[in-house]
Amino acid sequence: MRSHTYNDTLGSASIMARILNGKALAAEIQRELKDNIANWMSLGHRAPSIRCILVGDDPASHTYVNKKITAARNVGIDAEVIRHDVTISEEMLIAEIEQLNRDSDVDGILVQLPIPENMSERKVCCAVAPEKDVDGFHVTNIGKLCVDMSTLVPATALAVIEMLRRFNIETLGRNAVVVGRSKNVGMPIAMMLHSDNKHENRLGMDATVTICHRYTPKEQLAFFCQNADIIVSATGVPNLIKADMVKPGATVIDVGITRVTDANGKSRLVGDVDYDGVSTVAGAITPVPGGVGPMTVAMLMQNTFQAARSLRDKSLK
Amino acid sequence: MRSHTYNDTLGSASIMARILNGKALAAEIQRELKDNIANWMSLGHRAPSIRCILVGDDPASHTYVNKKITAARNVGIDAEVIRHDVTISEEMLIAEIEQLNRDSDVDGILVQLPIPENMSERKVCCAVAPEKDVDGFHVTNIGKLCVDMSTLVPATALAVIEMLRRFNIETLGRNAVVVGRSKNVGMPIAMMLHSDNKHENRLGMDATVTICHRYTPKEQLAFFCQNADIIVSATGVPNLIKADMVKPGATVIDVGITRVTDANGKSRLVGDVDYDGVSTVAGAITPVPGGVGPMTVAMLMQNTFQAARSLRDKSLK
Repeated sequence: MRSHTYNDTLGSASIMARILNGKALAAEIQRELKDNIANWMSLGHRAPSIRCILVGDDPASHTYVNKKITAARNVGIDAEVIRHDVTISEEMLIAEIEQLNRDSDVDGILVQLPIPENMSERKVCCAVAPEKDVDGFHVTNIGKLCVDMSTLVPATALAVIEMLRRFNIETLGRNAVVVGRSKNVGMPIAMMLHSDNKHENRLGMDATVTICHRYTPKEQLAFFCQNADIIVSATGVPNLIKADMVKPGATVIDVGITRVTDANGKSRLVGDVDYDGVSTVAGAITPVPGGVGPMTVAMLMQNTFQAARSLRDKSLK
Repeated sequence: MRSHTYNDTLGSASIMARILNGKALAAEIQRELKDNIANWMSLGHRAPSIRCILVGDDPASHTYVNKKITAARNVGIDAEVIRHDVTISEEMLIAEIEQLNRDSDVDGILVQLPIPENMSERKVCCAVAPEKDVDGFHVTNIGKLCVDMSTLVPATALAVIEMLRRFNIETLGRNAVVVGRSKNVGMPIAMMLHSDNKHENRLGMDATVTICHRYTPKEQLAFFCQNADIIVSATGVPNLIKADMVKPGATVIDVGITRVTDANGKSRLVGDVDYDGVSTVAGAITPVPGGVGPMTVAMLMQNTFQAARSLRDKSLK
């Protein structure tokens, strides 16, 4: 089903991969979501709401949170940032989360990571009530995802699955490689990719999945990638996936995002994939930026609306 | 590190795989456990206790429950079966589980599967309090396992990991294939096999893991197995894993257990692996019966003692 475009700019006849434009798809999903939220509110519900907790002054975290708040407001979600100085104690932070858990005007709670190193990320993430955990990091939500129950799913992982679906990439019985085993990204992607689509959450993609990571020898990583119909890389290692590791026609999803400074001192964002090389071999590829990143924000908005509806359904029972 | 024994009985020089004797290892673990429980009780603690709920009269289920009760009593665990007619309602069953959850004399609760088809296995398993869930099937325990937290781990999956460890099978950076994606067996095995050993539960094996299942094409299953240092098969499909699919020297763990009737009308238990063929190629292999089965029972006993200690520690806080 993939379409080819000829690389005219290079004056050659080499076939270029279809670009999976995450930015455009995210915009489309957010338009749908805006309509759905407006319809839902026309039934008398208040706007879905999200609170983003931001600790400290990491510039990247501020950028991410601002993107989330802007996107939320654009689709009709009531969104506020709660800022804290880096000196806040874990105890105080958890007390605040618990207060938000009890607040019936709040549907989604997000703690922007990373949090200060003297705090336990696991403890803080698990303080969020599972039904308001729009990041899907609570162990109960992870557990539900892993047994294919309907739940709030980590947004980046959901973004990858949603892109495969909406771009009609076949997965059933295909070989997929997930590079990276982080608990918030690589692991849930591998979980959905290999699971049974007939189960409750319908997120299973029925692919044969190989999970590679820091201890996978380089030549074995190449071996598995060369045999893969789908490669999902989520490591933060620039240029890890090169053209000679990719089977012609394969789909390559680049979840990595790393800020690098080039020889001219200019800073830019790159993924895990050698985009220029791989796009001459792959059948489809996500750009960085403009691929998985914007889709992650869209999935977070989707999760917030899902949380709002579930909480409303629950309160009616 | 594997040792070879020559197949003298066949009068040939073919090298036979090392047999990973699960029965003997389980006996050894249960002796250790018996000592540890006796020591713990000498500190003034009551015996660890388990209650096995058995619904209906499936002969295989009765056999399994009897094995568990016998093993428990042998190591010093107080064990009782609670039998119910197949007509018991889901509601009644859950009410009983909740009563056992509250009973401070009970450390472990196990519902023997399968339960009658009119009941939700997920709902019944999640009725067991996570801290008494010695089968490790509760979503909270699955979630904890999947993020590498210490918890009660499904006994069969734990049996496979414990065999790899105690038989000194190297896993870091090695290629492992898990055939079968069931949520109680294949999935948690794949989870531990690929995870980081440095994380909290120390169960991660750091292998590169490929998860194969019903939609993996036969030739792809063969391809992945032929490249694997470790094959774990958990499908219930006899003779799925054949000699020509196994790399010389690989470790083959057979989790399957199926009752078959041979041409003479004799019934016997077989695994997923063509044992006679594969044992001439593999470096190490588990027999069926006498491999993973007895180790599963030993791990259930270990879980029960772990639950008893955790509950005691908690009650002291």
